[in-house]
Amino acid sequence: MMKLKSPPVNSLSLELLTEFAISLEKLENNRACRGVIITSSVPKIFSSGLDITEMCGKSMEHYTEFWRAVQEIWLRVYSSSMVTVAAVNGSSPAGGCLIALSCDYRIMAENPKFSIGLNEAQLGIVAPFWFKDTFVNVVGHRIAERSLQLGSLHSAPEAHKLGLVDELVPEEKLMEKAAAVMAQWLALPDHARQLTKTMMRKPVVDRLVAHREEDIKNFVTFISKESIQKSLRMYMEMLKKRKS
Amino acid sequence: MMKLKSPPVNSLSLELLTEFAISLEKLENNRACRGVIITSSVPKIFSSGLDITEMCGKSMEHYTEFWRAVQEIWLRVYSSSMVTVAAVNGSSPAGGCLIALSCDYRIMAENPKFSIGLNEAQLGIVAPFWFKDTFVNVVGHRIAERSLQLGSLHSAPEAHKLGLVDELVPEEKLMEKAAAVMAQWLALPDHARQLTKTMMRKPVVDRLVAHREEDIKNFVTFISKESIQKSLRMYMEMLKKRKS
Amino acid sequence: MMKLKSPPVNSLSLELLTEFAISLEKLENNRACRGVIITSSVPKIFSSGLDITEMCGKSMEHYTEFWRAVQEIWLRVYSSSMVTVAAVNGSSPAGGCLIALSCDYRIMAENPKFSIGLNEAQLGIVAPFWFKDTFVNVVGHRIAERSLQLGSLHSAPEAHKLGLVDELVPEEKLMEKAAAVMAQWLALPDHARQLTKTMMRKPVVDRLVAHREEDIKNFVTFISKESIQKSLRMYMEMLKKRKS
Repeated sequence: MMKLKSPPVNSLSLELLTEFAISLEKLENNRACRGVIITSSVPKIFSSGLDITEMCGKSMEHYTEFWRAVQEIWLRVYSSSMVTVAAVNGSSPAGGCLIALSCDYRIMAENPKFSIGLNEAQLGIVAPFWFKDTFVNVVGHRIAERSLQLGSLHSAPEAHKLGLVDELVPEEKLMEKAAAVMAQWLALPDHARQLTKTMMRKPVVDRLVAHREEDIKNFVTFISKESIQKSLRMYMEMLKKRKS
Repeated sequence: MMKLKSPPVNSLSLELLTEFAISLEKLENNRACRGVIITSSVPKIFSSGLDITEMCGKSMEHYTEFWRAVQEIWLRVYSSSMVTVAAVNGSSPAGGCLIALSCDYRIMAENPKFSIGLNEAQLGIVAPFWFKDTFVNVVGHRIAERSLQLGSLHSAPEAHKLGLVDELVPEEKLMEKAAAVMAQWLALPDHARQLTKTMMRKPVVDRLVAHREEDIKNFVTFISKESIQKSLRMYMEMLKKRKS
Repeated sequence: MMKLKSPPVNSLSLELLTEFAISLEKLENNRACRGVIITSSVPKIFSSGLDITEMCGKSMEHYTEFWRAVQEIWLRVYSSSMVTVAAVNGSSPAGGCLIALSCDYRIMAENPKFSIGLNEAQLGIVAPFWFKDTFVNVVGHRIAERSLQLGSLHSAPEAHKLGLVDELVPEEKLMEKAAAVMAQWLALPDHARQLTKTMMRKPVVDRLVAHREEDIKNFVTFISKESIQKSLRMYMEMLKKRKS
C-alpha cells in the first residue's frame, strides 16, 4: 500500500511527485509486488491536486520541471503493470482526481462531504488533453464534456452515479474493501491481465508520449500568462482567507 | 435567446438556415453576448428538421447550396464559443434533433407526446457521418448504433433515460430552467470553458471540415437518385394527407 | 433462423466455424433473406466459445487455419447486411459472447444461472483487439476495460445492467421475442439501415482487415508458447474432472 502523506492537504508538489515516482518505480521493479493501493494519510483529503505554489511566481525552468513530473506520475500510474486500486478516503479535486482516474479501480468513502472531479475550469485553467482522455475513458464523452466545461466537483454519491468511482463504502470499511478488491484482481494471471490493460490504455499513453515536449511548452506558455498568474494568486488568497 | 420561428413546423429551409447562421454570427461577434438559448416559438414543435421540399424535385445546384447551409449551421452551433442551451419545447426529429445535440446542454419539456431522435432511416435516407459523430458523443456508440439503424424517435422520458437530453422539466418551467442553467454555465470563466469545449469537439468538427466537399457530393448524388426522390415524394404525400 | 448445433456445448471448432461461415454466406446471397436469428439448439448453452482442443497440441498450420476461420466468422457476422438478432438461450463465454456482441440486437433468457462475458483473461489468454473493439462499441471503454481485465462472466441480470445484452425475457418467451424484434428491424427500408450499420461498424472492421495477417501471426506465436499450452492443458483437465 502507498499512502500519500504531505500535510495539510496532500498537494502534489514537485517534491511529493518526485518521491511518488521513485516509490512507484521501486514497486514496479519488485517482482514480489503485484499490486498497490493508493490512499491518503491526511484526514478528509485524498489529494488536493497539483500544488498551486509550484505554478505561481516561479521561473519557466521551474514550470517545465514541474510539468514533466506531473506527466511522469500519470504515465507511471496509468500504465503500471501492477494492479492499482485507489482508496479515495477524502476529497480529490483536479490532479488528485487524475491519480484516482488512472488506477484500475476506485473505491470512495461514502461521505457526501467528500467530492471529486477535474475542476480546473473553475480556476480559469484548462485540463490538458491527457487528463481529458483519461476522464473520457472512465465516464464517456458526454459526462466528461459537461463536467470539464463546468469544472464540476461531484459529491461521492454523484461520482458513483456518473461512474467516476466504481464503488462507495462506509469510511471505516474502506481499507478492508480495497484489500478485498485487490485480492480479486490478483487472483487473475498477471501476464494476461497486463497485456489486456496495455491494449486498453496504450493509445492514450502513446498520445502523451508523442506530444510530451509540446504539452510542456503549452503548459509553460499558458501558466506564465499574466492573466493566469493573477487568477491563481487570487485563488490562493481566497484559500488563505478561508483557512484563517 | 434565439427563437426558431417558421410556422407551421419550423422546418429548416434554406432561408431559415441562412437567417439562423447570420444571427449566430452576429451574436458570436458581439462580445457582450456570452450565451444563447435556442428554442421554438411554434407550439409543440422545436423543429421538424430539414425541409424536405428543399431536397425534392430541385436542381443539383440547389441541393449543393442547401447542404452547404446545413453543414454551416452545424459547424456554427457545435463549435460556438458561446454557451448554448437547447430548450426543447416540442418534438424534434432529424435535423431538429441535430441542432439540440449540438448545444452544450439540452432541457426538454416533460411531455410524453414530444419526441426527439435522428429518424432519417425511417425515410429511407442515411444520417451523414457528422450527425452520427455528434450523436455518439452524446449517447455513446451502442445507443447511437441502435437508434440510428431503427430511425427511432424517442419520447421525452425515453430520451432522458438514454442521455439524449440532460433534463426534463414541466413545460411551464422550461424557460425558467433554461435561464438557470445558462446562469450556472456563465458563472465559469469564458476562456477556460471555451478552450475545454474546443478540446472536446475539435476532432469531430475537423473531420467535417476536412471532408466538406466530399460530403456535399455524397449528399447530392444520394438525394438525386430516383429511388430516393420517389420515397421522399411518398413521404410528403403522406404528410399532406395526415394534415387534411 | 440459424441454430448452432454441436453438442455437448456448441464449442466453435474449425468444423463448426466453417459450416457457420458457409451458411451465413448462403443467406447473405439469398435476397429473400433479410435477417437471421442466431440461437442454440443445445440446452443451457448458447456457445461455449472457441474450441480449446483446436488450440492445444496442434501444428502451427492448424492454429493459422483455425484463427483465420475465427476472424472470418466475426467479419461475416459483424458486417452482415442482414439484421442479426442473438437469442442467447444459455451461457455464452468468450467466443460465444463475441458472436452475440457482433449481432445487431441481443436478447437473453432471464435465467440467473446463464452467464456471458469475454473471460479469456481467466484462462491466461488475451482477447484480441477486435474482440475488444466489438466489446467497447457495445458497453463503452470503462466497462470493457474492467470486464476484460478480470475476465468476468456476468450473470444475465448483470449483463443486462451493463448493456452487454439489450433485453432479458423469460426462457419460454425468448424465440417469440426474438421474432418480434426481428419484425421491428425488418420494418425499416433495408438500404438506409445497411448504410447506417456500415457507417457505425466499418472503422472496426477495417482495422482487422488491415491487420489480419499480423493478428494471425500474433495468435499463433502466443498460443504456441509452452506456458500457454500448459495452462490450456490444465484448464481442459479441470473441465474433464468437473464433468466426471
